Amino acid sequence: MNRKKLVSQIRKKNSFLCIGLDTDIQKIPKHLLKFEDPIFEFNKQIIEATHDLCVAYKPNLAFYESLGSEGLKSLEKTIEIIPNDIFTIADAKRGDIGNTSTLYARAFFEKMNFDSVTVAPYMGKDSISPFLGFEDKWVIVLALTSNEGSNDFQQLTTGGFEVPLYEVVMKKCMEWGTDENMMFVVGATRANDFENVRRIAPNHFFLVPGVGAQGGDLKSIAEIGMNADCGLLINSSRQIIYASNGENFAEKAREEALKLQIEMKSLLQSKNII
Amino acid sequence: MNRKKLVSQIRKKNSFLCIGLDTDIQKIPKHLLKFEDPIFEFNKQIIEATHDLCVAYKPNLAFYESLGSEGLKSLEKTIEIIPNDIFTIADAKRGDIGNTSTLYARAFFEKMNFDSVTVAPYMGKDSISPFLGFEDKWVIVLALTSNEGSNDFQQLTTGGFEVPLYEVVMKKCMEWGTDENMMFVVGATRANDFENVRRIAPNHFFLVPGVGAQGGDLKSIAEIGMNADCGLLINSSRQIIYASNGENFAEKAREEALKLQIEMKSLLQSKNII
Repeated sequence: MNRKKLVSQIRKKNSFLCIGLDTDIQKIPKHLLKFEDPIFEFNKQIIEATHDLCVAYKPNLAFYESLGSEGLKSLEKTIEIIPNDIFTIADAKRGDIGNTSTLYARAFFEKMNFDSVTVAPYMGKDSISPFLGFEDKWVIVLALTSNEGSNDFQQLTTGGFEVPLYEVVMKKCMEWGTDENMMFVVGATRANDFENVRRIAPNHFFLVPGVGAQGGDLKSIAEIGMNADCGLLINSSRQIIYASNGENFAEKAREEALKLQIEMKSLLQSKNII
Repeated sequence: MNRKKLVSQIRKKNSFLCIGLDTDIQKIPKHLLKFEDPIFEFNKQIIEATHDLCVAYKPNLAFYESLGSEGLKSLEKTIEIIPNDIFTIADAKRGDIGNTSTLYARAFFEKMNFDSVTVAPYMGKDSISPFLGFEDKWVIVLALTSNEGSNDFQQLTTGGFEVPLYEVVMKKCMEWGTDENMMFVVGATRANDFENVRRIAPNHFFLVPGVGAQGGDLKSIAEIGMNADCGLLINSSRQIIYASNGENFAEKAREEALKLQIEMKSLLQSKNII
């Protein structure tokens, strides 16, 4: 999916919600365990109940890999049923030497047909560039993550630049990719840094985890972080998909997604984006 | 596998060779394509031909994931046939927020029964710690990688420390893990830095990629990098597994592995380790 189509979906749905499909066999409702593929069945019902309220789905690979090849099969089936007008994110945080990163790119973009994949920047240019050579596909680089550990290295002042490492990472990456094929992960729990992040990359889209269960606040992130094309995909996982663990889980997930979409509509209106 | 057993295997086999099972369907001998699972068949024959010459096998996950769930199944079958006295490394370069890293740890340590997994440090402590809580299992943290992109961030001087980022990463990680459950990836192409790396972590094992096809030199790395327990696992992938693409590929792979093992034996002797 290209940028133009992504922005048009945001305007059409009055939403910049990304739903994280972090589907954990130990957390899904018990009545689903009788299905042949409970993980897929859960995802299917969540997608059916929420697809008109969100613009993106983001499965985190760890949840599927923890079930081995069977888990990956559930993921492949899930990707197939996500409607084409929804942006898909493989939250994989990959990164390897050049020829190996190319294989990861093929795995996610061609074998599984994801629109985008998250990538860790530690290994530098040749670990990221291979993801940039695919039409209408995106690399989403970890910049400033939502977890406590983001203070360990990402915030270290980097000599010769006198800015935090995450800023050096973003600036370097912006030499390699454009706002048409690269986004950044910026945690919602980092509200103090959000202004700086938007200053560094005024036009890029940010994928923002950490709203909800992790404590980030949607309104303040939107106010600081939005640009003329919205420029944000706000992710919510647990708050939506585990809203209930009864038979009504999909309905309850919809209710949670709807609350966020209504708030998002009003934020988009206040910034004159819709 | 614990450290004592790993060191005893090095002494028993006169080898610190790790063979990278970077098995690419496009590069394996054509006659294998008639098998139901050509990737597994290739690995099986390579393992049968080399297991007495190496102390570790390291499949890179990208090669298996690029084939989807089928590829992961080939990997699962491969792990099952690796003899128990050989150390196994999931070269996955994972790293995510705490609860998600725990799932990756379970995937590789419990579901697939690997001894170790490579991890990228960008997300900090809570992305690495979850891998440390498993008995006789190891986390192998990317410190200074073998690729050109390692200059982009890993070598940046980090303010307040006046040392390169990779050094800050190693020192921080050594607060979280020990030389009994943590190793570091240090590229063989970084001979100039190897002395510094060994000074920072005198007792840790290093996983060293980049010998052979990538240009690193075994002898100079061994001379600078060995400690009293050897402390090195030198990886070779392409040079061994693609030594021939004829029907004799396994035999030729053995010849290449044997050359390295003979050189390693002499290096171990010269340092009085055996």
